[in-house]
Amino acid sequence: MKPRLLTPGPSMVPEETLLELARPVTFHRSAEFRQVLTEVEEDLKYVFRTKNTVCILTSSGTGGMEAALANCLSPGQKAILLISGRWGERWKNLCKAFGVEAVIVSVPYGQAVPPEALKKALADHPDAKAVCATLSETATGVANDIEAYGKLVAPTPAVLLVDTISGLGVVPCETDAWNIDLNVTGSQKALMLPPGLAFVSVSPKAWKVIEANTAAKLFYFDLKKYRDKIEKESDTPYTPANTLIKAMRLSLQRMRKEGIENVWKRHAKLGAAARAGVQAMGLELFAERPTDGLTVAKMPANLDSSPLISKLEKQYGLRVANGQDTLKGKIIRIAHMGYTDQFDVLAALSGLELVLLEAGFPVKPGSGVAAAQQVFAEGVKAS
Amino acid sequence: MKPRLLTPGPSMVPEETLLELARPVTFHRSAEFRQVLTEVEEDLKYVFRTKNTVCILTSSGTGGMEAALANCLSPGQKAILLISGRWGERWKNLCKAFGVEAVIVSVPYGQAVPPEALKKALADHPDAKAVCATLSETATGVANDIEAYGKLVAPTPAVLLVDTISGLGVVPCETDAWNIDLNVTGSQKALMLPPGLAFVSVSPKAWKVIEANTAAKLFYFDLKKYRDKIEKESDTPYTPANTLIKAMRLSLQRMRKEGIENVWKRHAKLGAAARAGVQAMGLELFAERPTDGLTVAKMPANLDSSPLISKLEKQYGLRVANGQDTLKGKIIRIAHMGYTDQFDVLAALSGLELVLLEAGFPVKPGSGVAAAQQVFAEGVKAS
Repeated sequence: MKPRLLTPGPSMVPEETLLELARPVTFHRSAEFRQVLTEVEEDLKYVFRTKNTVCILTSSGTGGMEAALANCLSPGQKAILLISGRWGERWKNLCKAFGVEAVIVSVPYGQAVPPEALKKALADHPDAKAVCATLSETATGVANDIEAYGKLVAPTPAVLLVDTISGLGVVPCETDAWNIDLNVTGSQKALMLPPGLAFVSVSPKAWKVIEANTAAKLFYFDLKKYRDKIEKESDTPYTPANTLIKAMRLSLQRMRKEGIENVWKRHAKLGAAARAGVQAMGLELFAERPTDGLTVAKMPANLDSSPLISKLEKQYGLRVANGQDTLKGKIIRIAHMGYTDQFDVLAALSGLELVLLEAGFPVKPGSGVAAAQQVFAEGVKAS
Repeated sequence: MKPRLLTPGPSMVPEETLLELARPVTFHRSAEFRQVLTEVEEDLKYVFRTKNTVCILTSSGTGGMEAALANCLSPGQKAILLISGRWGERWKNLCKAFGVEAVIVSVPYGQAVPPEALKKALADHPDAKAVCATLSETATGVANDIEAYGKLVAPTPAVLLVDTISGLGVVPCETDAWNIDLNVTGSQKALMLPPGLAFVSVSPKAWKVIEANTAAKLFYFDLKKYRDKIEKESDTPYTPANTLIKAMRLSLQRMRKEGIENVWKRHAKLGAAARAGVQAMGLELFAERPTDGLTVAKMPANLDSSPLISKLEKQYGLRVANGQDTLKGKIIRIAHMGYTDQFDVLAALSGLELVLLEAGFPVKPGSGVAAAQQVFAEGVKAS
């Protein structure tokens, strides 16, 4: 059986990156590794669409979110949280842990947070020091309108913190043009690497907030240290996961070679095809405003997704994701981000048709894959 | 040229572990990965010599030190720090960052902290909540007497936090028998893995302190979450560096197969041979109470170690370490920990003889390697 990893993180890693991970370990305080860091930093800026320094942390994405929040906010200060799913809830849990007062702006799972709701919250809470948002809500497949949030937050004293962990390198994300002050992402999604690294870009406006936040108790996640080390010495403050960073160079080179706009276009096509496919099978989309990195389909009434997902893996090698918490068994989440192409999407749709048929759901064989193929065929010219 | 990595972290990684790192990435919320975590947890307990839960963090070793300190101590509380080098200073910097009052017990670099000094500090500061120590001071090559510290701390209300990052799996370290309450180590030394993971074992006494420390502001490094996830679900609270953990299984299996007592014996022999070798060349040891994971030699007057270290790498492929901070140029640090054998030590000594000769230092060719070989030959019986 041929395995295909189609979970919304970790995602598949290119073969040349995997092979790099098997190379002998080298010392991280060396001219060679400083050169790697220099290149990786430049390529991260390219992918982030930013001139800002990108801090490279050895941690999961949650560590990056903690760094963003804890560097900007002190206990007792106020943050507006735009919550559209489980990963938005993580901002809430972080605020609770760090004693930050949370103003919650939430929507039912499956919906995006409308910019108007943020506009009202900012008007009601002019003392908010930060706004926390999620680009791609991995739990529901929703894309939030970060560009619109940025326009609202930029004229205020608040900083905009965005979790782009499953969105960066998938859908357009213009860190500078959209006024994202702290942009947090992780290695194991569209950046095509195993988990273990988080990245946080910090705007000049955010650095001022961070420098003024003298009450913060920080050490491992002190972003100022990462900034100073990378800017002045092309180095890191603590021993980094250097083999992951060296391997990431190859994945980032791949993105640069494809061109970030083309990366977005590819994902847009994969997303459109996957959505057309599941709908043609008779399934409904869960997300009202879908992201392009994963497709979340609702299960029909009386059909539990758990055994289908299990069968997809055991029988067909297709590893997709279940819903989390209250959504477990009710949805199926198929990721198509990073090192993924149109044929991976066709494989996923084909497998889904088969397990639905086996479960007695009336799907016309080929309907899903044909609908996806029609999307892929758009724009392909006959010779 | 054949490269040999002889820095005191990262150290060399076995080939089968490297190859595992090149395998396709898999999903981390799965029965397969829970099985990996179960095995790794058991093998970590074996290497730690503990019945306590070992928390597996995705971070550098410093993240593990922060977790140990920040979970136990609140701002304003007092800790006794036993400092014998740069890595002992890290405890001080952590205390500063977290507002912990530090009682410093330090010795000149090259010496170990005598247990009597801790005895006095404990008597002078009965309100100390913690004692922070370093097993193997990587900056100076010194081994501290953790067993003696443990005997002094155990009857007090204080908890004993030990950084064993470059010592665990090298020299004897009996977490339970020595009363180490929080034992912090990292992946990239004797555990034979690239950097990216930290491990913290926590004693029942320490859990009580941690549970009572309700003022702590923790999220990513909240050890209670790691304990609950690993104990109840064989899982991790946040996306772990799962490829590193899967690969670590192989390195830990290697340690279990060799037997931890034999691992210690091997390192004892490597350390004894390296020390005999550098002394036979006419160099002095820097450490008064040397650890077995690295050998630190003083440079003769008027001889700068920096160009020698550079030449060892460029001309002979031997990557050893310089002194740090004020010790730069004054010492040379040769590591022999983890995936290292007697012939690696001979190679290092041979290279050192050659660059010393080239620098005009009067060393008799073969004196260092012969002295080391004599150590290796001890106990080898003629047939």
